[in-house]
Amino acid sequence: MDKVFLIFLIVIQLFCVYSYTTINRYNNRECTLNPGLVEEIASYRNIAKRIMYEILNNTMGESMYNEYTYFIDKFGARPSGTHVLEKAIDHMFNLTIRHGLKTVSTEDVQVPHWTRGYETAMMIRPRIKPITILGLGPTVNTSNEGITAEVIVIRSFEELNKIDENIIKGKIVVFDAHYSSYGETVAYRVNGASKASEKGAVASLIRSVTPFSLYTPHTGSQRYGENVTKIPTAAITHEDADLMRRFQDQGLSIVLNISMFSTFDLKISRNTLVDLVGREDPNKLVIVSGHIDSWDVGQGAMDDGGGMFISWYVPVVLNKLKLKPRRTLRAILWTSEEPGLVGAIAYLKKHKHELSDINFIMESDEGTFKPLGLDVAGSDNARCIVAEVLKLFTPIDKMKVSKSVGSDITIFNNEGIPGASLLNQNDRYFWYHHSNADTMDVQNKENVVECAAFWAALSYIISDLSIDIPRI
Amino acid sequence: MDKVFLIFLIVIQLFCVYSYTTINRYNNRECTLNPGLVEEIASYRNIAKRIMYEILNNTMGESMYNEYTYFIDKFGARPSGTHVLEKAIDHMFNLTIRHGLKTVSTEDVQVPHWTRGYETAMMIRPRIKPITILGLGPTVNTSNEGITAEVIVIRSFEELNKIDENIIKGKIVVFDAHYSSYGETVAYRVNGASKASEKGAVASLIRSVTPFSLYTPHTGSQRYGENVTKIPTAAITHEDADLMRRFQDQGLSIVLNISMFSTFDLKISRNTLVDLVGREDPNKLVIVSGHIDSWDVGQGAMDDGGGMFISWYVPVVLNKLKLKPRRTLRAILWTSEEPGLVGAIAYLKKHKHELSDINFIMESDEGTFKPLGLDVAGSDNARCIVAEVLKLFTPIDKMKVSKSVGSDITIFNNEGIPGASLLNQNDRYFWYHHSNADTMDVQNKENVVECAAFWAALSYIISDLSIDIPRI
Repeated sequence: MDKVFLIFLIVIQLFCVYSYTTINRYNNRECTLNPGLVEEIASYRNIAKRIMYEILNNTMGESMYNEYTYFIDKFGARPSGTHVLEKAIDHMFNLTIRHGLKTVSTEDVQVPHWTRGYETAMMIRPRIKPITILGLGPTVNTSNEGITAEVIVIRSFEELNKIDENIIKGKIVVFDAHYSSYGETVAYRVNGASKASEKGAVASLIRSVTPFSLYTPHTGSQRYGENVTKIPTAAITHEDADLMRRFQDQGLSIVLNISMFSTFDLKISRNTLVDLVGREDPNKLVIVSGHIDSWDVGQGAMDDGGGMFISWYVPVVLNKLKLKPRRTLRAILWTSEEPGLVGAIAYLKKHKHELSDINFIMESDEGTFKPLGLDVAGSDNARCIVAEVLKLFTPIDKMKVSKSVGSDITIFNNEGIPGASLLNQNDRYFWYHHSNADTMDVQNKENVVECAAFWAALSYIISDLSIDIPRI
Repeated sequence: MDKVFLIFLIVIQLFCVYSYTTINRYNNRECTLNPGLVEEIASYRNIAKRIMYEILNNTMGESMYNEYTYFIDKFGARPSGTHVLEKAIDHMFNLTIRHGLKTVSTEDVQVPHWTRGYETAMMIRPRIKPITILGLGPTVNTSNEGITAEVIVIRSFEELNKIDENIIKGKIVVFDAHYSSYGETVAYRVNGASKASEKGAVASLIRSVTPFSLYTPHTGSQRYGENVTKIPTAAITHEDADLMRRFQDQGLSIVLNISMFSTFDLKISRNTLVDLVGREDPNKLVIVSGHIDSWDVGQGAMDDGGGMFISWYVPVVLNKLKLKPRRTLRAILWTSEEPGLVGAIAYLKKHKHELSDINFIMESDEGTFKPLGLDVAGSDNARCIVAEVLKLFTPIDKMKVSKSVGSDITIFNNEGIPGASLLNQNDRYFWYHHSNADTMDVQNKENVVECAAFWAALSYIISDLSIDIPRI
């Protein structure tokens, strides 16, 4: 065959391939998928419908919701390192087996066990007023007498940087950072104590990270920087932050007494793995996950009882429906997410050699309100495939694209593993987050069941596709 | 004059009067006002504009708002019978004088002084869980050991009535009445303890009277019936009421331990009267009012710091503007409204002989959000006049008609005195009401100033009209 003819053939072939491709769009980017794949994805329409139907219209979804409610009501808050968390893990383990799925196992993880003890704050000047505080884990303690010091109210790290150390020294810094987005404002919760300490503060308080307050304090984790004097730190309400701001603006001296006592040690907890073993590529994994631990305030119903439960339900319900995907579908109930993704980091370390087997990783940890679609991290190709799959779920077909998604699974995204988290109508998520208001009252049965149905059907398709989700 | 001619003259006269009347409408009712009066009311347009302008556009409104904020921040909660309430009354008295109005006086009133002490509740069965409670004043105490008893969750008084006494006896009744309107649902707060006690309950708890909760308990007053064994009573959150409802629905036994300690005695407090003495009929009164006391939780910024302040401001600002109405315009800062209109009842009793002099009585005690108009009680004629006056304030011209309005002033309406309360965009009022969330954060400066401007201009016109507001 002469060279010219060969080139001619290649050009014709390329042209055929090109003309065969389908172009679909997401977020104004062009997707070019192999038409065979598009056809394959479309062929899942009936199975997606069936899974959704079984969960939504039979008693299955309602039963799942009742089991979820029972779980939250029985255990309530499930802080890392506590006995109640381990009981909750046992419960989910046994529940999996009762549902006929024996491929459930746990993996030990050493986790922090920070226990809130006594916490109280009193404004002494300009007037006596109790200030509700909620320690940020794992804060250090005050002395037994507490800390009595003058307050300086500061809007931002930029403002802190500009203030002379002598002014901060010996004071309680109140970070009065107004909520813009969780991603931005949470910096004050995570790093506030360290930044204040570097300037010589004796304690730091943050305006609770929420867009709305009914005098509601919100806890969360914080991290002391290296070589920084660890100072006690807690959240206060918007209302008290605003009050202190006004006092300061009037030139009044504000003095608080803060007493805090908590304990810290390490315990063994467990990640829970529920496998629906793949029928063709059992070593290949699609992971769907949520975290089983919660903060000590509230009941951990929303964060992340809902996400954990609908993720756990994926292999359980598919097994009931006798649907075995090509790859292994693994639900993981992460332990100890709240102190800093401890369970997920342990899993990543333990399974480092198998990371290439993880085809896709999903998490629901931003609410189980009305489902809207997915937030996707991964290569353009990965996103195109997910966008094509989402077409099966209209109107649950919104797609957001992020560099990394979810909470626990961000560390997997950072390893190049594509993934997605559940987009849902969670406008009020941070009203409840890490507060006493995180209870079953947040949840709406119909919406949680819709989330579960979408999550199960989507997971099935992703884990059953003939091709792996391509990495970058 | 013969009879026929006399009848002819009367018919002609009636026709003239009829043809002279103007018909305006409110709430689909016909108003027939003397055209002279309509013209007179219309002639107040410029003065209404001027008063509004001075408050809204000069620094006056902002100064008032700053003084209001200062007051709330300085005193915080001002419960009936407390020293801080008396200090707050002194402050308003002195502030009035500082503003150049010397016609301010106080009248002693014996008031209840209920002081919340120690309050705690723990669920013991089916699991250990702290239950946030907020005693309803003036609840009696538990014994030192507290009450440990089984719970029965009941939706309504109707349901209670149907249940055999033997089932209620010795139990803690949880009234899980879902919020419909404050007027309806508050019956459970006011009468729940007595109704439960009549059936042999040892304590009663109510689902907090609010349409929305972030695990927020709401206090309020309750009243023991005569010849009823007084039992301890408190509010719980929606979240815990729902939890106990679910436990009961599962057939689980719920046991709570409740400990409550508070004290009760009587003190002397004061109603504060600020008079702008009338230029023609100084003995005739138009009263504009709000209450200065508050519950012990929150800061009493909304209930009723805002309403009290804008009412107090009416004679103060009109005096500054050198506007002296025909009748005396009296601002009253009621004391001890929260325990049951104690200040208002004392005023009514003391001034019983002068009730016929009260031409109109106004109150703002349902928020100072965006002003919308008035809720009016009184004769059809009274309402027609008010509707005509409201035309000067478009778009603040909505009118609602009620049998009695406000809180303190209802007892005056019941004596036949026409009155009005401030209609405002208070959709979220009960989210904050009687809770820790009643702080300055609820308020919006612009709206409060608008309320103050409207309230002052309206009060001026009502107290200056050539005719009295007619009674029924």
